Amino acid sequence: MSDYSLLILPGDGIGPEVMAEVRKVIGWFQTNRGMRFDVSEDLVGGAAYDKHGKPLADETMAKAQQVDAVLLGAVGGPKYDNLDFSLKPERGLLRLRKEMDLYANLRPAQCFDALADFSSLKRNIVAGLDILIVRELTSGVYFGEPRGIHDDNNNPENEGGRVGINTQRYTSGEIRRVARAAFELAKKRGNKVCSMEKANVMESGILWREEVQWVHDNEFPDVELSHMYADNGAMQLVRNPRQFDVIVTDNLFGDILSDAAAMLTGSLGMLPSASLGAPMDNGRPKALYEPVHGSAPDIAGQGKANPIACILSFAMALRYSFNEGQAADDLEKAVEKVLADGVRTADLMGPEGGTPVSTSEMGDKITEAL
Amino acid sequence: MSDYSLLILPGDGIGPEVMAEVRKVIGWFQTNRGMRFDVSEDLVGGAAYDKHGKPLADETMAKAQQVDAVLLGAVGGPKYDNLDFSLKPERGLLRLRKEMDLYANLRPAQCFDALADFSSLKRNIVAGLDILIVRELTSGVYFGEPRGIHDDNNNPENEGGRVGINTQRYTSGEIRRVARAAFELAKKRGNKVCSMEKANVMESGILWREEVQWVHDNEFPDVELSHMYADNGAMQLVRNPRQFDVIVTDNLFGDILSDAAAMLTGSLGMLPSASLGAPMDNGRPKALYEPVHGSAPDIAGQGKANPIACILSFAMALRYSFNEGQAADDLEKAVEKVLADGVRTADLMGPEGGTPVSTSEMGDKITEAL
Ligand SMILES: CC(C)[C@H](C(=O)O)[C@@H](O)C(=O)O
Ligand SMILES: CC(C)[C@H](C(=O)O)[C@@H](O)C(=O)O
Repeated sequence: MSDYSLLILPGDGIGPEVMAEVRKVIGWFQTNRGMRFDVSEDLVGGAAYDKHGKPLADETMAKAQQVDAVLLGAVGGPKYDNLDFSLKPERGLLRLRKEMDLYANLRPAQCFDALADFSSLKRNIVAGLDILIVRELTSGVYFGEPRGIHDDNNNPENEGGRVGINTQRYTSGEIRRVARAAFELAKKRGNKVCSMEKANVMESGILWREEVQWVHDNEFPDVELSHMYADNGAMQLVRNPRQFDVIVTDNLFGDILSDAAAMLTGSLGMLPSASLGAPMDNGRPKALYEPVHGSAPDIAGQGKANPIACILSFAMALRYSFNEGQAADDLEKAVEKVLADGVRTADLMGPEGGTPVSTSEMGDKITEAL
Repeated sequence: MSDYSLLILPGDGIGPEVMAEVRKVIGWFQTNRGMRFDVSEDLVGGAAYDKHGKPLADETMAKAQQVDAVLLGAVGGPKYDNLDFSLKPERGLLRLRKEMDLYANLRPAQCFDALADFSSLKRNIVAGLDILIVRELTSGVYFGEPRGIHDDNNNPENEGGRVGINTQRYTSGEIRRVARAAFELAKKRGNKVCSMEKANVMESGILWREEVQWVHDNEFPDVELSHMYADNGAMQLVRNPRQFDVIVTDNLFGDILSDAAAMLTGSLGMLPSASLGAPMDNGRPKALYEPVHGSAPDIAGQGKANPIACILSFAMALRYSFNEGQAADDLEKAVEKVLADGVRTADLMGPEGGTPVSTSEMGDKITEAL
């Protein structure tokens, strides 16, 4: 019998290439640490559309509900740009998030010392940066109803005659559960949470602020909590990102702010993410892990992609799904060692040089370092 | 008879201090260039609340509708943090924007050479930066209905029992008019527009993209147009902001992205903004000018505030409301000269030193330089 079941969804673009390197890492832990993984693989995004005519087949969705963890590569590509909204590769990913109810999206933005010079920010601003953005992932304007594009022909003042609508909708319960996740995580880190919204212009932001405060006062009074408007948050991330420990925010603000935070580190190819839901019968949370980077169609299939973000996503799976904290630490250290040794995929190659390697060689180096 | 009518709303915090310096500049143009300004002054924000019990009196609103241009300092302060949503200082500003129908908010993010080292970004990334964000300002989630916080007691799954709602709503006409403003401005600059939305997850973003494209194809085919998802936009602003010329985006994305862009320059105390609406009978657009910075209650009343953002907002008024392009250029050059001479308010004082001056001395230096 296996200990851990994993569904691998390589997806599009560089997804399959980087996932092949994760396979090596999984193999290493099977052979050398006696972990038993039951790994299955399936399609998502454009790859699923090509085969099934939709970006996530129902059988794939059902499988995802049964495994301990889903590992996803990336979705999307120019080939699919003109598909109908409901068929776009992104919808496959959004369906997974929604139906697995993965409400807490953990996006660490960490600056690796060996790579600090890649940042467009000054070294003294980003060196040692280690923040964690906890983004609500199953609600808000991404999923709220009503939504759509409608005719507005009876309105003579509306040149063009159409109207586009989306709804930002949050329940207090949705806010509380992601706030709890953020506070729990903060307790294991710097013990500080900053919550971001636009309570000065949006009522949903007022509710957000009040409910986060409620969870704090009733359940986590010892964690330091502050509130910040999201526009100021964007500014502060650029000005002095190290003032933050954990940031908790909604789906849309989280999308934008976590991307800005990721770019501060200068090495997008390094950043993993975890999306967690409620505990299943076996006590493990529903979980999906994916790199923050996209499908990078421009370099797909050329052995240029950096597999580290995907490998570190697997490290997050070891930690959050399988409770193998030691193994996760070891894997993260192996990555750091390889970087300190100057091993570099193309995206990490800077003026100071290093040993250029392909996607596959990077995977080999990391398993060797383990 | 006066040539130009101006309503000055100093507002809260450092607003009155910085506005006093603008008054000097206005005086200079009256005396030395024979421009005749009819200047009146009134209250907005917390100052208006203190007197009238609301953040903008109806008479002030009526005056704002009649003048050629409104010049606003800043609103808000901790004293007003616990006021009801509808009474908060911000509502005064939002009412002005909405009732004057100021749909195009121009936010230049310019990096002044003398100040490039203030940026948290590397000099080679930001030196010479000159982008213009055109933010839609009268619609979207800021104003869409339905909105509010409601009881949701019949939903046993909703711990807390409340729900917060806001609506993102854009008509094609609203999108087209701000797109036109962006294309017109681009023609006078780098001839390039990048439009940002989340068309991959929001239908209102799809409409946004289609309508901007329509205006381009039908009216501005010679301006270069690109589209970008707003999360990627946030990343690209951090990674390589000089790739942009004009960015056009909606009210909420514009709020966040323009603040991130402002912070790239490292000198928030320098950045002006203009909010423009449709032409009035005299051919001038409805207009409100304000610095990008806030009311900075922590330093209010101490003579520490930098008046340059507010003075440059007046320069924008000269250019966009009064068609005094030459005067605007002269004023901007005077500011550059004073900076090049090393004159510095506290916020601009860096390691390389300079001549420290108060708010009022900075105003004097700029009028002298004129
Ligand atoms: C691909 C897209 C739907 C997605 C999002 O907007 O959430 C992506 O930007 C992300 O952040 O994971
Ligand atoms: C003060 C606030 C209502 C305002 C906004 O959100 O638009 C401010 O952040 C701005 O950008 O002018």
